Amino acid sequence: MHHWSVLSLYLLFIGTCYCQYKPTWESIDSRPLPEWFDQAKFGIFIHWGVFSVPSYGSEWFWWYWQGQKYPSYTAFMLENYPPEFTYADFAPQFRAEFFDAKEWVDIFASSGAKYIVLTTKHHEGFTMWGSKYSWNWNAVDIGPKRDLVGDIATALRTHSDLRLGLYHSLFEWFNPVFKADAANHFNTTVFPKTKTLPELYELINKYKPELLWSDGDGDAPDGYWNSTGFLAWLYNESPVRDTVVTNDRWGYGSICKHGGYYTCTDRYNPGHLVKHKWENCLSIDKRSWGYRREAKLSDYLNTEELIGALVETVSCGGNLLLNVGPTHDGRILPIFEERLRQMGQWLKVNGEAIYNTTAWRVQNDTVTPGVWYTLRPKENAVYAIMLSWPNTGYVVLTDPIASHSKTQVMLLGYKPLMWDSLSPTGLKVYLPQLTPDQMPCSWAWTLRLTGVA
Amino acid sequence: MHHWSVLSLYLLFIGTCYCQYKPTWESIDSRPLPEWFDQAKFGIFIHWGVFSVPSYGSEWFWWYWQGQKYPSYTAFMLENYPPEFTYADFAPQFRAEFFDAKEWVDIFASSGAKYIVLTTKHHEGFTMWGSKYSWNWNAVDIGPKRDLVGDIATALRTHSDLRLGLYHSLFEWFNPVFKADAANHFNTTVFPKTKTLPELYELINKYKPELLWSDGDGDAPDGYWNSTGFLAWLYNESPVRDTVVTNDRWGYGSICKHGGYYTCTDRYNPGHLVKHKWENCLSIDKRSWGYRREAKLSDYLNTEELIGALVETVSCGGNLLLNVGPTHDGRILPIFEERLRQMGQWLKVNGEAIYNTTAWRVQNDTVTPGVWYTLRPKENAVYAIMLSWPNTGYVVLTDPIASHSKTQVMLLGYKPLMWDSLSPTGLKVYLPQLTPDQMPCSWAWTLRLTGVA
Amino acid sequence: MHHWSVLSLYLLFIGTCYCQYKPTWESIDSRPLPEWFDQAKFGIFIHWGVFSVPSYGSEWFWWYWQGQKYPSYTAFMLENYPPEFTYADFAPQFRAEFFDAKEWVDIFASSGAKYIVLTTKHHEGFTMWGSKYSWNWNAVDIGPKRDLVGDIATALRTHSDLRLGLYHSLFEWFNPVFKADAANHFNTTVFPKTKTLPELYELINKYKPELLWSDGDGDAPDGYWNSTGFLAWLYNESPVRDTVVTNDRWGYGSICKHGGYYTCTDRYNPGHLVKHKWENCLSIDKRSWGYRREAKLSDYLNTEELIGALVETVSCGGNLLLNVGPTHDGRILPIFEERLRQMGQWLKVNGEAIYNTTAWRVQNDTVTPGVWYTLRPKENAVYAIMLSWPNTGYVVLTDPIASHSKTQVMLLGYKPLMWDSLSPTGLKVYLPQLTPDQMPCSWAWTLRLTGVA
Amino acid sequence: MHHWSVLSLYLLFIGTCYCQYKPTWESIDSRPLPEWFDQAKFGIFIHWGVFSVPSYGSEWFWWYWQGQKYPSYTAFMLENYPPEFTYADFAPQFRAEFFDAKEWVDIFASSGAKYIVLTTKHHEGFTMWGSKYSWNWNAVDIGPKRDLVGDIATALRTHSDLRLGLYHSLFEWFNPVFKADAANHFNTTVFPKTKTLPELYELINKYKPELLWSDGDGDAPDGYWNSTGFLAWLYNESPVRDTVVTNDRWGYGSICKHGGYYTCTDRYNPGHLVKHKWENCLSIDKRSWGYRREAKLSDYLNTEELIGALVETVSCGGNLLLNVGPTHDGRILPIFEERLRQMGQWLKVNGEAIYNTTAWRVQNDTVTPGVWYTLRPKENAVYAIMLSWPNTGYVVLTDPIASHSKTQVMLLGYKPLMWDSLSPTGLKVYLPQLTPDQMPCSWAWTLRLTGVA
Repeated sequence: MHHWSVLSLYLLFIGTCYCQYKPTWESIDSRPLPEWFDQAKFGIFIHWGVFSVPSYGSEWFWWYWQGQKYPSYTAFMLENYPPEFTYADFAPQFRAEFFDAKEWVDIFASSGAKYIVLTTKHHEGFTMWGSKYSWNWNAVDIGPKRDLVGDIATALRTHSDLRLGLYHSLFEWFNPVFKADAANHFNTTVFPKTKTLPELYELINKYKPELLWSDGDGDAPDGYWNSTGFLAWLYNESPVRDTVVTNDRWGYGSICKHGGYYTCTDRYNPGHLVKHKWENCLSIDKRSWGYRREAKLSDYLNTEELIGALVETVSCGGNLLLNVGPTHDGRILPIFEERLRQMGQWLKVNGEAIYNTTAWRVQNDTVTPGVWYTLRPKENAVYAIMLSWPNTGYVVLTDPIASHSKTQVMLLGYKPLMWDSLSPTGLKVYLPQLTPDQMPCSWAWTLRLTGVA
Repeated sequence: MHHWSVLSLYLLFIGTCYCQYKPTWESIDSRPLPEWFDQAKFGIFIHWGVFSVPSYGSEWFWWYWQGQKYPSYTAFMLENYPPEFTYADFAPQFRAEFFDAKEWVDIFASSGAKYIVLTTKHHEGFTMWGSKYSWNWNAVDIGPKRDLVGDIATALRTHSDLRLGLYHSLFEWFNPVFKADAANHFNTTVFPKTKTLPELYELINKYKPELLWSDGDGDAPDGYWNSTGFLAWLYNESPVRDTVVTNDRWGYGSICKHGGYYTCTDRYNPGHLVKHKWENCLSIDKRSWGYRREAKLSDYLNTEELIGALVETVSCGGNLLLNVGPTHDGRILPIFEERLRQMGQWLKVNGEAIYNTTAWRVQNDTVTPGVWYTLRPKENAVYAIMLSWPNTGYVVLTDPIASHSKTQVMLLGYKPLMWDSLSPTGLKVYLPQLTPDQMPCSWAWTLRLTGVA
Repeated sequence: MHHWSVLSLYLLFIGTCYCQYKPTWESIDSRPLPEWFDQAKFGIFIHWGVFSVPSYGSEWFWWYWQGQKYPSYTAFMLENYPPEFTYADFAPQFRAEFFDAKEWVDIFASSGAKYIVLTTKHHEGFTMWGSKYSWNWNAVDIGPKRDLVGDIATALRTHSDLRLGLYHSLFEWFNPVFKADAANHFNTTVFPKTKTLPELYELINKYKPELLWSDGDGDAPDGYWNSTGFLAWLYNESPVRDTVVTNDRWGYGSICKHGGYYTCTDRYNPGHLVKHKWENCLSIDKRSWGYRREAKLSDYLNTEELIGALVETVSCGGNLLLNVGPTHDGRILPIFEERLRQMGQWLKVNGEAIYNTTAWRVQNDTVTPGVWYTLRPKENAVYAIMLSWPNTGYVVLTDPIASHSKTQVMLLGYKPLMWDSLSPTGLKVYLPQLTPDQMPCSWAWTLRLTGVA
Repeated sequence: MHHWSVLSLYLLFIGTCYCQYKPTWESIDSRPLPEWFDQAKFGIFIHWGVFSVPSYGSEWFWWYWQGQKYPSYTAFMLENYPPEFTYADFAPQFRAEFFDAKEWVDIFASSGAKYIVLTTKHHEGFTMWGSKYSWNWNAVDIGPKRDLVGDIATALRTHSDLRLGLYHSLFEWFNPVFKADAANHFNTTVFPKTKTLPELYELINKYKPELLWSDGDGDAPDGYWNSTGFLAWLYNESPVRDTVVTNDRWGYGSICKHGGYYTCTDRYNPGHLVKHKWENCLSIDKRSWGYRREAKLSDYLNTEELIGALVETVSCGGNLLLNVGPTHDGRILPIFEERLRQMGQWLKVNGEAIYNTTAWRVQNDTVTPGVWYTLRPKENAVYAIMLSWPNTGYVVLTDPIASHSKTQVMLLGYKPLMWDSLSPTGLKVYLPQLTPDQMPCSWAWTLRLTGVA
């Protein structure tokens, strides 16, 4: 008999289950990825938690301080806090008093992103909603005293264009129940049964996310986490079974191999076509996902670099998940707002070369550097995105096969352009001479080619 | 198959178990109470926890504030804390920086007490040791940053005379897992299985207490708590199976009926003989068990009242468990120290009328008010304890049957006294005229009668 | 021309000033002490300030920590506070949230004291009222956010029996303006002119105290402080010129020599008659005036010792100023309340041997130890106060000259006693045999002798 | 005789004083402005203080909250702080733990600024150095626990190019000594004599600034402040008498009329030539000088607007003092760093049209909008700065009188340009067609005209 009360509760309610997917990787992996994800191309990642209070070094603050005992972290604590101050003592200072979910969503929407992914619980174990399974270590009991996940979910639903994704860490660095299982070589499973899985059910049922971004296997295999069991429920029976997308971080060995889309490594950006849908998660801060106060301007990617990453990622079949770290008092700082709004300015002109596209037969031009291709199959339009504006007055596109009778070239945001065909293949596209005011956009420019092969 | 990993771990280690006691009340109740408890007569109760931070009103602060919403508690918070301050926010201020377990034990020992009972977890759920099952809501992770239970246990072991008792609350007012079970009418048992029972096993195995003072059934029956199952383990297999004493608070309906000794109600003091061993737990502060800062001198029982309660309790077959509330910074205030040391001064003279005694055939004198009897069977000595010193020069003891040839009367701490027999029964004992310096003690005086029936 | 605006303001208002006292010690010292002070005999000293926050070691915490750098203070800070925590950082925690001036006054009145002396500013410089000259370093701007001096003064006025005394420190350990003057060997006087004197005028005019307890000359002579100038104003023109009493701490060299009554040293208790009116200031805590949390019961004088000190002091012509240290949250702890109320119980019976008395021709009995005399001249009554009750049944009073026809002996709170005359002088007084309930009081007993010489 | 010890101390040390300037406005105003200031053109203003802790609304937080009682400020406090929290309670949280003066100076230097002006004391009265006259209300005693003014002064001296300016407020909103003088209609002068003036002498002598930016007369006339007396000392005898520059805020009525250069109003930018040297102080945040956390990206001036303001200001004879507000923990946020570094990028190309220039006979072109002129007299070069790049391929400069034989036109950062003369006057300058990479700079472009009249 099932003794697992939370689980059995669901089973009671479910009634008949057609149960298309079985709790095996073979079955789970056979599910097609819901289409919206590949069409969206661009999402916003948000790393927020108790680590936003020290806001120093990294969102891995706790681990670097008390796990690794890195000297810079030790020194930071010694210089600024009383002795015996613990990580838990940071939580009351995570007050989010300036947090306005509507403002956040406005900024996210202005960036042209189509989904967001919020850390609902990082490896620190602090849940950003009032989880029943994390009593006195969650955002309702301490610190913000509000349901941060719920606030964002609600604000998001006013934007039909933005979908909700939730990040969730399977393991928790310092949870003694996890550590006890680990000491038993994961032959006991008290932690997943009393913490991780109840939390995941709670999250899905309560917030109905369309993306579940799993992370942090703690070196435990997926069997320990009962990942396929959970995913079978998610795909067969959960309220989001039709639209939910998930990733590949479901246990030691699953990454880049099983689950939904692949994330492989942080900042994964292979530079060539990957057939299985993938995501490049990238932080504006080159060294941290959580906000860190000591970051200088030079530590941030600038808008040109970010647009370059988006273009390259999309050309190679990926999505870009661009990360910002809010402050402990609940703000997205203007420097990040500036980056995101500039992404949106660019996408307003060049969005048709990004959204709803697929990879073309060639990713970047064989000859001309800094030119990346995408394809919009319905319109049979090929997009050549130039990461710099040539000083020569023209650009050579080697890979498209043009035809004089059919081929048309258009600078997005401007007008059709003149071109010559090259031999054996390719085009020479003549660029107009534009003053700063006449330029349709900055940072990168898109040529739409129709009637090419 | 057993799915309960923590439990099964123990089962693995136990090997052969004779298992004298079965998990039924009939069997559990049949176990004789270890002798030491009835001999000890006097213990110290210590209420200490996060409630010692607001230190206002009562150790039920959280419940009165946010459960009952009593206006005085609401006002106290409004006037002194930021809005949205939660109970969890008190925990970092529970610093115990002046706590010195050795000093505490010295004070306890000076009182003449033979055991102590420490709140290891009150209904607030905060564990005073680093429980694996109360992550980030325990004294090692937050506040004191030390194992308070362990510190006291260690200091206590240096005193062969003082035994360790641990108070533990079954339920927790606001634990959402408990509340979920309660909402299911206790038909689910997630809370006892993942919290209460693992904690109890941890406590017993780690600290090996000789007394387990259970409390707080949360209106749930003992079946929900699996109390008989736990007690069977405690009596059959635990490391303290031979000496451990426990009480009667093991589930709705068990109090004053099942388990070890009876506590019945707080401040239980029936005034007549009770056959089943019982305990009168009594707080020096008339209105609170936890320290509350607003208490005035008049709110405290004075030494005369405390000695009166001890005498009456012991005469009627009970033990006195006298409570003090330490401060959040770890001190037992001098006013409590004074009370306790004065108890010890009195017991130094009169202890033979208390320790190792049993109830006599009469509890208090039939005629003379304020005279209570105890019996030391081995020596066949009857003790008549007078709660006041008569102004008449003599005291009438109605109930002892004296014999001129054998009966001797002694004022403890002084000398033998003259007496006359009364008819039909009883003695008239002549008291000496003593200056303050000549008095053997204050507050109450004991006459030892030997050779009486 | 006077340039001192604050001073000149007063001069403008004063109009004609008879100006009996000149700003010289000869003139100041010639003023008779207002009678109420010698009649009062017993006052309560209250040390309260920012030092009540660390509440460790002594009210000299700041100096011992950062002036002397005593290791125990340094360690205390290192273990409990962030590095670079300063003394000023303690001030916001001085909240006085439990302070109730009415309750304090009730306790003071219950003790039998006739005046109180409150630290309005200790050497730390923090003013307990909203001084204009101590901006952001006073109890209205930081910490309590209320006028503590005013609250107490107001509550006191409801008790016609208790007079207001204010303690004020001339110098401030760390005030840089004082330090600059000191570095100039007190040849500059910026500090007294801009801080000390304006404050003193403000205090006197605002609160109209009947006692001004000056302290802390900082090794500067009275000329630096302009003490005689201030005292001339106080005695000639201030609103309390008729009743105000002051002490002798008015500059280096003035102590025990100039001003009002003598304090000489802390805990001054010469044991013989001193002709100039003096005061024994004595703290219940043997080692500190401010409350210190680490104090044990054994660090406190008990009631017997306190009554002994009162008796000895009054016999030798002094007043006793008994000190208590309230907590940072505004409470007089029950242990102090107990001491004070017991003083009052004793004075209720024995007060006529204390209040309004003068020293007799002999202070303590020539032969019998522990017997002290006072005199009530109007009634021509001599009081012999015994600090212990003789076990012999009688007491020998060597010094009174009795006459069989006129002399009567009375045990205060009881009845007339029998006596015999001794030769060459003295009496043998026969004491009754009293049970504890019959005793008129504890700790010390008074024999009133009338008709003796 | 002078009774003013601090002042007299200086007089003693000075010895012979030629005392060129008398303490009258006529004399003070006759002093020529040291040349460096007009040559510098561009400075950085830094508003930092206790107001950086709430960091809400404005650096006038205290006044708006408790002086004006604006509802938004009242609500902010009610929602986020305990009742009775005072402004002084913010000070301990002003910790500056990330402050690195060297980093600040690097950012300031990168902007092309030639001087900085730091708020050493704003109207809140908190001194950013350990002033002797602001005990326990300064950055050494509370909060940062360091001499912020000294740290910045020291770091600045490593840059020979950046001069030190100090902002200082004469009055303090809530200082009771000032308020008492104000209540006396400024007929008493206790505040300037014991606070403002001693502080100013301390600042000048200790940090030797080359610019003193006075502010905040509190509606008191310069006579009250003894401003001309102080300035006479500053110009005649102070250690910076030869190089120090000051402004015009020296008492009610002095602004835009007396003292050194004129500031007139905040954000003063007249748009036409002003003969007396003036300064446009302008904050990147359009609504606040101190950092405020609720500011959005749209609240900040962008680089294009800032360069426009610099160009217009310099053309009209002013200096631009561009303000940033650091955070309470000591950082200049990346969004400000970005603005400042972009100013520097622009000045690297166009600096010769800004530094060491004077106003030309025409400020902005009579016909073509957005073209501003400056003059470098030695080289007889006229600079025409275009705030936008014409789409027409040429620009018409109406006011310069060109000569075919002598006139040359150069685009700064590029090459000489072709031009035609226009009739009756002016030139038509032909602009090159440049790709983004070929542009010498962004935001504004400079044409250097030599050989024009």
